[in-house]
Amino acid sequence: MAFIRKPLADCVPELVATARGDQPATLVIRGGKLVNVCSGEILEGMSIGIQGGRIAYVGKEVSHMIGEGTQVIDAGGKYMAPGLLDGHCHIESTQLTVSEFARAVLPMGTTGGFFDAHEIANVFGLKGIKLMLDEMRGTPLAAYMQVASCVPAAGEEFETTGASIGPKEVAEAFTWGDDVIALGEVMNFPGVVYSDEKMLGEIQATLRAGRYVDGHFTWPSSDWRLPIYAAAGVTGDHECVTADDVIERVRLGMYAKMRRGSAWHDVAKTITAHTERGLDPRRMMLVTDDRSSESLRDEGHMDFVVRHAISQGVRPVTAFQMATINTAERFGLARDIGSITPGSYADIILLDGNLSDVNVVLTVAAGVVVAENGVMTATLSSYTYPQEVLSSVHLSSRPTAEDFVIPAPISTGKLAARVIEVRENHVETLEQILTLPVEEGKLQIGNGDGLCKIAVFERHKGTGNKSVGVVNGIGFHEPAAIAMTVAHDSHNVLVIGNDDELMSQAANAVADAQGGVAVITAGGTTLFPLAIAGLMSTEPFEIASAQSAAISKALYDAGCTLNYAFMTLSLLALAVIPTLRLTDKGLVRISPEEGIQRVSLFV
Amino acid sequence: MAFIRKPLADCVPELVATARGDQPATLVIRGGKLVNVCSGEILEGMSIGIQGGRIAYVGKEVSHMIGEGTQVIDAGGKYMAPGLLDGHCHIESTQLTVSEFARAVLPMGTTGGFFDAHEIANVFGLKGIKLMLDEMRGTPLAAYMQVASCVPAAGEEFETTGASIGPKEVAEAFTWGDDVIALGEVMNFPGVVYSDEKMLGEIQATLRAGRYVDGHFTWPSSDWRLPIYAAAGVTGDHECVTADDVIERVRLGMYAKMRRGSAWHDVAKTITAHTERGLDPRRMMLVTDDRSSESLRDEGHMDFVVRHAISQGVRPVTAFQMATINTAERFGLARDIGSITPGSYADIILLDGNLSDVNVVLTVAAGVVVAENGVMTATLSSYTYPQEVLSSVHLSSRPTAEDFVIPAPISTGKLAARVIEVRENHVETLEQILTLPVEEGKLQIGNGDGLCKIAVFERHKGTGNKSVGVVNGIGFHEPAAIAMTVAHDSHNVLVIGNDDELMSQAANAVADAQGGVAVITAGGTTLFPLAIAGLMSTEPFEIASAQSAAISKALYDAGCTLNYAFMTLSLLALAVIPTLRLTDKGLVRISPEEGIQRVSLFV
Repeated sequence: MAFIRKPLADCVPELVATARGDQPATLVIRGGKLVNVCSGEILEGMSIGIQGGRIAYVGKEVSHMIGEGTQVIDAGGKYMAPGLLDGHCHIESTQLTVSEFARAVLPMGTTGGFFDAHEIANVFGLKGIKLMLDEMRGTPLAAYMQVASCVPAAGEEFETTGASIGPKEVAEAFTWGDDVIALGEVMNFPGVVYSDEKMLGEIQATLRAGRYVDGHFTWPSSDWRLPIYAAAGVTGDHECVTADDVIERVRLGMYAKMRRGSAWHDVAKTITAHTERGLDPRRMMLVTDDRSSESLRDEGHMDFVVRHAISQGVRPVTAFQMATINTAERFGLARDIGSITPGSYADIILLDGNLSDVNVVLTVAAGVVVAENGVMTATLSSYTYPQEVLSSVHLSSRPTAEDFVIPAPISTGKLAARVIEVRENHVETLEQILTLPVEEGKLQIGNGDGLCKIAVFERHKGTGNKSVGVVNGIGFHEPAAIAMTVAHDSHNVLVIGNDDELMSQAANAVADAQGGVAVITAGGTTLFPLAIAGLMSTEPFEIASAQSAAISKALYDAGCTLNYAFMTLSLLALAVIPTLRLTDKGLVRISPEEGIQRVSLFV
Repeated sequence: MAFIRKPLADCVPELVATARGDQPATLVIRGGKLVNVCSGEILEGMSIGIQGGRIAYVGKEVSHMIGEGTQVIDAGGKYMAPGLLDGHCHIESTQLTVSEFARAVLPMGTTGGFFDAHEIANVFGLKGIKLMLDEMRGTPLAAYMQVASCVPAAGEEFETTGASIGPKEVAEAFTWGDDVIALGEVMNFPGVVYSDEKMLGEIQATLRAGRYVDGHFTWPSSDWRLPIYAAAGVTGDHECVTADDVIERVRLGMYAKMRRGSAWHDVAKTITAHTERGLDPRRMMLVTDDRSSESLRDEGHMDFVVRHAISQGVRPVTAFQMATINTAERFGLARDIGSITPGSYADIILLDGNLSDVNVVLTVAAGVVVAENGVMTATLSSYTYPQEVLSSVHLSSRPTAEDFVIPAPISTGKLAARVIEVRENHVETLEQILTLPVEEGKLQIGNGDGLCKIAVFERHKGTGNKSVGVVNGIGFHEPAAIAMTVAHDSHNVLVIGNDDELMSQAANAVADAQGGVAVITAGGTTLFPLAIAGLMSTEPFEIASAQSAAISKALYDAGCTLNYAFMTLSLLALAVIPTLRLTDKGLVRISPEEGIQRVSLFV
């Protein structure tokens, strides 16, 4: 089935003829309660006439537009709202392909989004972004791509990635089409504030192309440098965790994106900027950022986030604005998406019950009924990634148990070492200094000390780079190991465990699968294959989410009870967020004052 | 003095360096109450740092940005608001050049606007628009041009204009620069709704260029065809005279522009869409449309309109939003104008007293202090129009008293004739059928019957086209005549009077002046020369507004007491608004049902 989104200019003649009644509508929805996000009203007894992919008419009466070929849907008094938009989302975090993501979220009422293919960009650079863009274009979604801005996240002296992106690549990506809409979250905000040439160059390339710059500022919003970041042209930011974070950004002319991911539960706090402190909500947006396939299955997508916002006391129509028209306006797209108005794309959802239930029962995308009662009714075309992308794990040799040995500069005794401390529900880690035993010239980890080893194997270029460190807080209460090719942001092979042999088995399991997550215990191996760039599954949503859940269960059974454990573990190599991380080049320490530094294991 | 507005991309490095304190600001404003139109708040104790034409920093503290060359203004607790934007304005209606208009409105706090050079377009076509655009670019204003869409307004079969504009010309105008932002009010809304090829072509050219289409829909907003107009891509409309007009437009995805011109007093009614009926105000805008130079002098410009809106019960910060950020967002320019935020142009006003007083005491435009305490402090460069534009009145011969004779098909007796009835404070005219006396084969008008003759002489091409009709409701109580080269929309020479000899004198007076307005009575001649395209004065604001006032007084003294009489009279040739009008080709009758028709004088 083809889903066609033509520019408005090309559609004007047929939209006008249709609205006038001289050309039959392709689809008509009659007799619903219109959620009008432009006026902030709910209007009873409204009908919508559609021609192809766009809305031709909105009014009390559409019978003049009904012809022989017109599909007619009786809304039966249900709510008719604009399809929900996700204003900041990494599809790779769902471990689904774009098509399977679309198949998962369309029945939940998400009809469009702003996607930052940051993860595949770290593996395949611009080529990876372009592939996901191509796949997007075949789905019913009003999908817009952002160009990953920080690849590599931390610089080549700190880690090895599969590719890098700079101002030239950013400028090139914007020539691909109007659906390449923005520069993805500029995580290197210190670089921006302190005039890093590459970061300012990327921003300038974006502004010159008439596109938008998204931010990622994690210093406190009271920091005097947030206005500097705004002066650079950053006009949206999702790193809001308090009401003040929202308020300060909006005051500076940004759109504040409030996030409810699988593990990032920020809306309850951030929404009080409006509900308690009265901020004008026009520049407040709801987003998901990162949601796992399990979260999609068990909670939902933007429908869940909007429902949650309403449950915090937001007027329903205002919450819908935060996931529709506000998002569209933030990206200059309000003529195409975000409202049920003549000329807009026909992305419409019907909702049963009370509006506050956000109970989506029918989804129209690009003028086509694609889902009813929670089930896809449209068939999406499949997309095949090239072989190169399906074989992206290039280790210089097969890891062995020996690879996980940590040699010490003494033969026997005790040494003070830097240990990464994991904190549940926090992106940040802590640096712990622990005194650890050495035997036979090797650091002794495991054996009931609650510690694990953590290792990173470079997997893009076969350099053989490898590092091993120590991590605390994983919780394994039996011999266990996990290996993964999803390891933000460079996505090398990350292995965590308390048993060298199991660690090597896990590493080999994901290498043999050309990507994925493997948990190995005495009970056996649990594997979630992620063959697409080592990040995404080739399986349908239903299977992938079950495999994702199996990984969670295996971790839990082995004693790792962290909330959304996999998501937390996959960030342990992320060399831009405080405090201690491990990359293929060794331990790095990150602090607001001193930036990123390589540090030694032994103090 | 040069006023420089560079693209944000070019400014990013120096804005960041300035905000950080590594490059001194050019201007700093300290210690004011910030009117934050993004968040809808008033924030105390705020300061602003500026680098060149843009804002580098907004925060509590800017001392780190002050260097040797920094100009420092102490706001002393006054309000600091974004400069006001006029969302729909015909500068020609002020009869001032763009430079003089800027000189008039900058001290009142208007720092930008969206100008539709519709009048000069009817005389000189694209060339006229380009000249006014060039003049705009030299002023301190953030000035954006709209391309006149309906030239001629009524079609060549009904009137002779100096030029015509179609899709090709529209597309060409958008290549001139990003400051050509929109298609001007599409007055031929029946053409749009009924798929007139030229009108849809102009709209398509506009959308393809990524620009915006402004509307002008004068059927009632309850008409079922308003959604058709919206489906064509029209997203803004200033023809709102009731609250419903505003509400229906916003519901359909348009921005509703609420007008307070000299003669069009629509805000008091339209604003109740928000104040009484609770409409979300984000898509409501305040505009002037047409204000005479007298109105500017005596009432003000956007400061007056915002003050008036507040007096109707709008929260002050909301009223400011309607003249700043809403306007900027409507035209996709919120990153450049409409708020005091880092990165935006430094267009800032200081206000004394209460915010509701809208008492502007200092204006900064493009980072330069241009006005203080109601007086311009900056010198604007002058702009010289080419000789061709200064000699635009091309009559085939000098009008004589004989030209105003209306020959009748009978020698003596009475005949029923169509008479244009003027209605005070209404744009529409009525058609009256009156039985009028004939003597010596000539219709007898004047002599205490309260009627006047009305004549139009074609003045663009020297065709010699001429027509004479009858008008009622002017009010002259003595022998009097007025002639004018401002005669919407084709701007031929329009003459109204009750004495053939005085009418010929008035016509010759404006012809000799190469454009203007002349009132002639027994008491003498009052002339307001308008040499630029017959529309605008070459004089400074102070002189032009005094000359404009003199015309009003002369009309009043002769018995024409209509509110803003000149503006009403200058519309009597406008062949697109009901009901009866006179053009150089004769009488035309306009009705919603039958469109435009040529009709005879005698019934």
